[in-house]
Amino acid sequence: MSADAPVVDPLAAERRARVSWARLVEPRDATAAALVAEHGHVEALAMLRRGAATLGRAATERLHGLDLEREWRATARSGARVVVPGDAEWPTGLDDLAIPPHCLWVRGTGDLAALTLRSVAVVGARSATAYGERVAAELGAGLAERGFTIVSGAAFGIDAAAHRGALAVDGRTVAALACGVDRAYPSAHADLLAEIREGGVVVSEVPPGSAPIRPRFLARNRLIAAMTRGTVVVEAGLRSGSLSTARRAIDCGRPVGAVPGPVTSVTSAGTNQLIREHQAELVSDTAEVAELVGDIGVDLAPVRRGDARPEDALREQPRQVWEALPRHGGMPAEQAGVLARLTPAEVLAALGELELVGMAERHGRGWRKTTLVDDTREGAVPSSDVAG
Amino acid sequence: MSADAPVVDPLAAERRARVSWARLVEPRDATAAALVAEHGHVEALAMLRRGAATLGRAATERLHGLDLEREWRATARSGARVVVPGDAEWPTGLDDLAIPPHCLWVRGTGDLAALTLRSVAVVGARSATAYGERVAAELGAGLAERGFTIVSGAAFGIDAAAHRGALAVDGRTVAALACGVDRAYPSAHADLLAEIREGGVVVSEVPPGSAPIRPRFLARNRLIAAMTRGTVVVEAGLRSGSLSTARRAIDCGRPVGAVPGPVTSVTSAGTNQLIREHQAELVSDTAEVAELVGDIGVDLAPVRRGDARPEDALREQPRQVWEALPRHGGMPAEQAGVLARLTPAEVLAALGELELVGMAERHGRGWRKTTLVDDTREGAVPSSDVAG
Repeated sequence: MSADAPVVDPLAAERRARVSWARLVEPRDATAAALVAEHGHVEALAMLRRGAATLGRAATERLHGLDLEREWRATARSGARVVVPGDAEWPTGLDDLAIPPHCLWVRGTGDLAALTLRSVAVVGARSATAYGERVAAELGAGLAERGFTIVSGAAFGIDAAAHRGALAVDGRTVAALACGVDRAYPSAHADLLAEIREGGVVVSEVPPGSAPIRPRFLARNRLIAAMTRGTVVVEAGLRSGSLSTARRAIDCGRPVGAVPGPVTSVTSAGTNQLIREHQAELVSDTAEVAELVGDIGVDLAPVRRGDARPEDALREQPRQVWEALPRHGGMPAEQAGVLARLTPAEVLAALGELELVGMAERHGRGWRKTTLVDDTREGAVPSSDVAG
Repeated sequence: MSADAPVVDPLAAERRARVSWARLVEPRDATAAALVAEHGHVEALAMLRRGAATLGRAATERLHGLDLEREWRATARSGARVVVPGDAEWPTGLDDLAIPPHCLWVRGTGDLAALTLRSVAVVGARSATAYGERVAAELGAGLAERGFTIVSGAAFGIDAAAHRGALAVDGRTVAALACGVDRAYPSAHADLLAEIREGGVVVSEVPPGSAPIRPRFLARNRLIAAMTRGTVVVEAGLRSGSLSTARRAIDCGRPVGAVPGPVTSVTSAGTNQLIREHQAELVSDTAEVAELVGDIGVDLAPVRRGDARPEDALREQPRQVWEALPRHGGMPAEQAGVLARLTPAEVLAALGELELVGMAERHGRGWRKTTLVDDTREGAVPSSDVAG
């Protein structure tokens, strides 16, 4: 319950019933969903108690052990609040789900409804490549700078890169967890989650103390898809869980974008397939994602044209190194470092990045610019005007 | 003329006239095209000679210097044959072009019509990355193994990798050149071209001795697009010439595929854009390309051929302007003029005509294509399943 909640909570009975349901059954439990859809959470719970309705054995056992005071204490101890439909903080996008969550535990200084009003899910593989993490970080930062909240799952790889990209520009970000909001999963992301909670929130539909078991990840993915205005998958293998987020977004009528990648990369096979099967739009940069999910007219992406120079897209250090490199012959990395005023480690990182994007190549014992930049520009006469 | 040609060539007069036209004017010369379309090559040439029709000054000078015996000698010396419509070796796909070639010079042991019956164009950037060349070689080999002839332009980068992939599995491959078939361009590919001619052919619509100048590359691209059953672009910058091949393939109703790549790679920006704008299907491997181009039937009658497109009805200048306009955002009239190589007055007239027929509209201070036309074109590519 929010600190600002009135002394008398008009939703008290509803809130107690919904917390009970969240404790009794797993997310997306179909029997429970049918009961509460027909009778409401309060009456359906009363029916359970008087034996007028039944759940599975495990749920029935949990009903006997239900202790709401303990739930409130655990919630308070974790610094969380319980949000239910009717609360100002409830993200109304969740109402588009076939089986919405009974309630949410929300932890952090942000307001979940306000945060998700203009938000994008940026999700992808845990086992991401450097390419994927770079794109996720750039999208996280770029979209946050445009006022979008970045919603993701706090996992290793793409998720973390997206959250960190937003945080790097003091943007807003939300993590939806498959475990209780009192837990840090993965534990290596305890600091990341703490950072997210400053300005943003961490959210879950399972009570504090709950462990991150597999079905809860799939359930969590639907929250990410429904809370946001659109979903972008940055990298995903053919069986990546992030593809389920994309499917749930489609189910909810949200636009879905996917970042293409090399056909030789297994972590791009899923995103390429989404695009190939027309389940996702191909998105290349922040502007294209903003156009996909943003207000029509406000966030139109410029058509990518050849007049932008490739080096414009580089970060500062790789660009300095690129500018120092010759077009012909080969320059030793040390010399490029001196010219670009960078340390040896910085030069090597920059050269690696330039090689990855095809803007520098090894030549003999040194490095040089690739000719592709010239060739691209050489086509300054666009071919469309001389069409046959 | 083929070595197997009968002693009396039933197409002799037509062949002489067509060779004359190929010598007189550049490929896609609109005045010449209109004359021969109305009067036939033989009569149109006679009209030129008696002054009943005129061409530009350069062509007129060439008419005075025309020496057909010299042309036959040069053709024979280069080991080539002249192929015209009506010859068994004429690739009937060329008849789908708005301005088909007057004739073809063909050099090699293969039969061009047989070679192109089941063929795919595999094209892309000269300044390819290792990734692009790897994919091009794999597609070249894989498609050749499935019985497809690989047609490309013998350029550095993607083209050469595709040819070599086919040759590596003893597959069949065809190189279409922007210069005469007696020349090796690029000269570093003399051996590659010789290898292609064993089993395959090298083909050009410009006479032996002709130099590879820029407009001939664009003209050559339309031959590659029209001769084949489909085109795959492997890597291309935003202004790569291979994008013109893709556009001409679309014009001819051929399916177009594009290989996606990292959004951080400038040489994948063009292919990613083709996919993003639903002008090409995303293809990841040989099987997907074979599916794209392979199940049309035995003859060269593609399914999408009958679809009339609104821009087909436009005159040349409005069409050039229309092709230059973006789908989103707005392009200043001046910029459209530069892209379409028209004077300010011509651009304004063209824009007025486009606005009148509803194919262009003002947007901000600029102009863009109307969505009406996009909808028509993208009808074959469902994007609706992404939306709600």
